[in-house]
Amino acid sequence: MRLATLRDGTKDGRLVVVSPDGSACAPAPVKTLQEALENWDAVAAQLAAASNFPDPLDASQLMAPLPRAWQWLDGSVFSSHGALMDKVLGVDKPPVSRPLMYQGVSDKFYGPNDDVRMPDEALQIDFEGEFGIIVDAVPMGTSAEDCKKHIRLIVQINDWSLRALAGPEMKSGFGWVQAKPPCTMAPFAVTPDELGDYWRDGRACMDLLVDWNGTRFGAANGEPMGYGFHELVAHAARTRDLVAGTVIGSGTVSNENFREVGSSCIAERRGIEIVDLGAPKTEFMKFGDTVRMQGTLPDGRAPFGAIEARVVQA
Amino acid sequence: MRLATLRDGTKDGRLVVVSPDGSACAPAPVKTLQEALENWDAVAAQLAAASNFPDPLDASQLMAPLPRAWQWLDGSVFSSHGALMDKVLGVDKPPVSRPLMYQGVSDKFYGPNDDVRMPDEALQIDFEGEFGIIVDAVPMGTSAEDCKKHIRLIVQINDWSLRALAGPEMKSGFGWVQAKPPCTMAPFAVTPDELGDYWRDGRACMDLLVDWNGTRFGAANGEPMGYGFHELVAHAARTRDLVAGTVIGSGTVSNENFREVGSSCIAERRGIEIVDLGAPKTEFMKFGDTVRMQGTLPDGRAPFGAIEARVVQA
Repeated sequence: MRLATLRDGTKDGRLVVVSPDGSACAPAPVKTLQEALENWDAVAAQLAAASNFPDPLDASQLMAPLPRAWQWLDGSVFSSHGALMDKVLGVDKPPVSRPLMYQGVSDKFYGPNDDVRMPDEALQIDFEGEFGIIVDAVPMGTSAEDCKKHIRLIVQINDWSLRALAGPEMKSGFGWVQAKPPCTMAPFAVTPDELGDYWRDGRACMDLLVDWNGTRFGAANGEPMGYGFHELVAHAARTRDLVAGTVIGSGTVSNENFREVGSSCIAERRGIEIVDLGAPKTEFMKFGDTVRMQGTLPDGRAPFGAIEARVVQA
Repeated sequence: MRLATLRDGTKDGRLVVVSPDGSACAPAPVKTLQEALENWDAVAAQLAAASNFPDPLDASQLMAPLPRAWQWLDGSVFSSHGALMDKVLGVDKPPVSRPLMYQGVSDKFYGPNDDVRMPDEALQIDFEGEFGIIVDAVPMGTSAEDCKKHIRLIVQINDWSLRALAGPEMKSGFGWVQAKPPCTMAPFAVTPDELGDYWRDGRACMDLLVDWNGTRFGAANGEPMGYGFHELVAHAARTRDLVAGTVIGSGTVSNENFREVGSSCIAERRGIEIVDLGAPKTEFMKFGDTVRMQGTLPDGRAPFGAIEARVVQA
């Protein structure tokens, strides 16, 4: 089952069920994805029963599948990325035996084709291609094993970053506020069965194709997460109940062979350049730049659709 | 004007206007404080017009004035606290010329008398007495001066902390997730005029009386913030639009003469003990412990009412 949200003038939009070929949709029995997640078992059965898709799906009307959430927690659990980023940011962190995670702005997720407003090119505008999940309500202290069943939907996210601010905020120990403007979400939130065998051990085992200004930049695979999403959910729920509709991200998708497969963010490529060449040569994004991101299965299917976003001056 | 929210079985409760003596209330023209903040200029005039308070105010029905928010950003801008905490946590931070701020869980604020559920005493349960503000919508890039008019309400907050988790999370550079369960709010959100001359330069210049298990623990004053709340709002809005209903906190209220006036959190007292005695002697909270917090003006008035909360096992 794939779900999307259409513009209707409200902040939460209007939920629809998307046809198997992605070209059409059917009205949902509840107005918003948030409502569906608050009563998932009952609503999901009704959503899954849709077999008639009377309305053409107009890409220009797509919001993020969850246009705002009560909570957005982003991990960073691809170790090949983490090690490089520490070098780039000049952060000397002790080794950790726990997932890295911060809480980010969640009152707005940009739709897949929305222009993204940034204040200043000098802040070093970067994209970060990620996979993510959305849970229903998770009680405090739920085990990782039991968290598996709370993962109701999988999503694809661009976690926009302002690198000039990221290092100083990280060194403060308080984490990121200014360095992390709102994210973009790909059009479709999908149930795990849509990924078939490529949803394994709480991981979206598929390539994330990233194109910057029309040129392939990365095709890293989502499998080598140091922790599965169910472990990230349990980490987040250790000392709080997770509200239905909590979104949790993987952090930048990254593979050990990033020199061959490329990267999901510019900062990682710059990190490689620093290691290989002594200095970064790839610049950050400029106003007018576009980025396209599409999680893709080996048979070519793109369950989440694609993010195609342009950066503009606020 | 003082506003409160009463239980009605929903997550957002029902907004009321509180009488000058705090004993009674009047229905509000909109159902929730969030709705009021989204259309503040129009709604505030109606709220302020209330002169008849027909309903007795039942303290057992009080929720947090804003029971959930789309965004909670907590600063840490009392320098006497920050310096001590770095010692306690063993964090060696570079000097910073900007406010410290992290984003915390906001889908739930405990009401002033709600029991507070914690998973484990061994996580070192602590309170943190703070002042905070609530804004209406603030566009990205708004100057600190222009942010003054967006501060619509002042609140009083207990930012519960789990100190055993705080240090490791801070050292990761990602900030706090597990170390910061949901906060408690005092019953009344008040317009700045309620503080009269004690609202100065974006600061609540009043003592925060903190009692732990019935014994006075601290009476620090809110004036010596390193940054005013308008500057914290501008900091938060540098790279994002702030959604109406964003709550921003001061961090633990702390004064340079903390040996005389006491502290607003246990960790600070332990920090003093480390400096003075070589080791901490005050233990953290146990299940069943209570904390009372009341911001108090020189004439004895308590504009926010009081937090009186008990810690219980989840």
